[in-house]
Amino acid sequence: MEIVCVGNELLIGKILNTNAHWLARRSTSLGIFVKRVTIIPDDVEEIARCIREVLERKPRFIITTGGLGPTFDDKTLEGIAKALKRKLEVNQTALKMVKEKYETYAKAGKIDKVELTPYRVKMATLPEKTEPLPNPIGTAPGVLAKIGRTFLIALPGVPSEMEAIFEESVVPMLKKEAGDITFFEISMYADAIMESTLAPLIDQTMRDNPYVYIKSHPRGEEEKPHIEIHLSTTAKEPKTAQDRLEKVIVQLSALIEQTGGKVRPKKMR
Amino acid sequence: MEIVCVGNELLIGKILNTNAHWLARRSTSLGIFVKRVTIIPDDVEEIARCIREVLERKPRFIITTGGLGPTFDDKTLEGIAKALKRKLEVNQTALKMVKEKYETYAKAGKIDKVELTPYRVKMATLPEKTEPLPNPIGTAPGVLAKIGRTFLIALPGVPSEMEAIFEESVVPMLKKEAGDITFFEISMYADAIMESTLAPLIDQTMRDNPYVYIKSHPRGEEEKPHIEIHLSTTAKEPKTAQDRLEKVIVQLSALIEQTGGKVRPKKMR
Repeated sequence: MEIVCVGNELLIGKILNTNAHWLARRSTSLGIFVKRVTIIPDDVEEIARCIREVLERKPRFIITTGGLGPTFDDKTLEGIAKALKRKLEVNQTALKMVKEKYETYAKAGKIDKVELTPYRVKMATLPEKTEPLPNPIGTAPGVLAKIGRTFLIALPGVPSEMEAIFEESVVPMLKKEAGDITFFEISMYADAIMESTLAPLIDQTMRDNPYVYIKSHPRGEEEKPHIEIHLSTTAKEPKTAQDRLEKVIVQLSALIEQTGGKVRPKKMR
Repeated sequence: MEIVCVGNELLIGKILNTNAHWLARRSTSLGIFVKRVTIIPDDVEEIARCIREVLERKPRFIITTGGLGPTFDDKTLEGIAKALKRKLEVNQTALKMVKEKYETYAKAGKIDKVELTPYRVKMATLPEKTEPLPNPIGTAPGVLAKIGRTFLIALPGVPSEMEAIFEESVVPMLKKEAGDITFFEISMYADAIMESTLAPLIDQTMRDNPYVYIKSHPRGEEEKPHIEIHLSTTAKEPKTAQDRLEKVIVQLSALIEQTGGKVRPKKMR
């Protein structure tokens, strides 16, 4: 999987990219790994160029976030259409979805009448040969395109809407692709040992446990070394994963304690 | 500027990418705009491929974060060397920096003796024709390379170290490049108006105020529309920027209130 986040607000540091984080975490937990995340501006040429580059790498899934709304700078679908050399056209299924939303809003008294202005029709204007994905809690539908073996899925930038469409329409696709494989991780913490002293101990443990990936993250201040050691593995059976991770914890803990370090394990996922 | 963040921990959603956010915010405030952020795994081939791609776009600055430490999976410098077709070699200035750090650690009683193990020498092993940037609060130096008109700057992944090297060694370079130009922004908030109703009002205001960029961010729940409207501009004089932003606030507020919406301005940067 690759993730493409569209939005100037991310590139000026106005907004923290919690969408990429959430998508990466959720997809990984389902056994689908994210190979790359790219953040690009609200610019049709940049979006088109980026989508073409990602397609050349032939990931099974591309998820875009942002740029599906009614305003002038919501340009993701225009960019995707350009990348795929497809026309933009009003999609009747999408238009029905959008219209029904505004009918609900009118009933609730939030707008006077259901007027399908060009700004509202824009949200139902999709590249040819794509299909809308229902938005359970907002107005703009998601969009699904199939290009060769790649599924390209455009989601809105509003986190709650992005998450809702992902859970309803994307998770079933990812589960089908991943099969039984699941991702397991646990962190242990080492105190009173420097990362450069820990490095050879991790090397040795990884050589002995080829299915477990071990990565150290220094967390403490210089005066007080404190290192998070993150262990992860993928397996069909939770038991297999747990046994592997426990074996690594025992071996690495012993090595760390031999150098005078202290160890504390934590949180399995 | 482009930012490249290296780290599996970002791609599995273990860690939120606060480094890209901080760098984007800080650089923008200095008048240097970020065109793209890319997150890639701890993999030499992927790092080399990504750096080559970024170099082809010829940004003035490339900042990488992560992968400068002593462990097996700290691969950023190997990836950069491969992209630039330069050898890795022990840099004597960097080695002196690293050695002095360990002498400080030994004096503080955190390690028994200053032993320059291969894992420690690794942090002073840089691509040919690059220079180390002092790390005021950690061990691994940053790295500066010049490729044509592009400055490639590698920073550590630990946020406090990344920020310290950036402030000390990178900010002066950015200031020199940006000259007097500074970025100004303010947010106003609109209630009781839907984003699709607001869209044409923003269009009209932007046509009348071509130097101000206006972007709406829906923040409320479906039942209670609440929209942040973010205004930004770049200018040499703060007064010029302030006048522009105030003119937009007045015009857009009037338009919103004509449709029955409510407005509240907030936070200038």
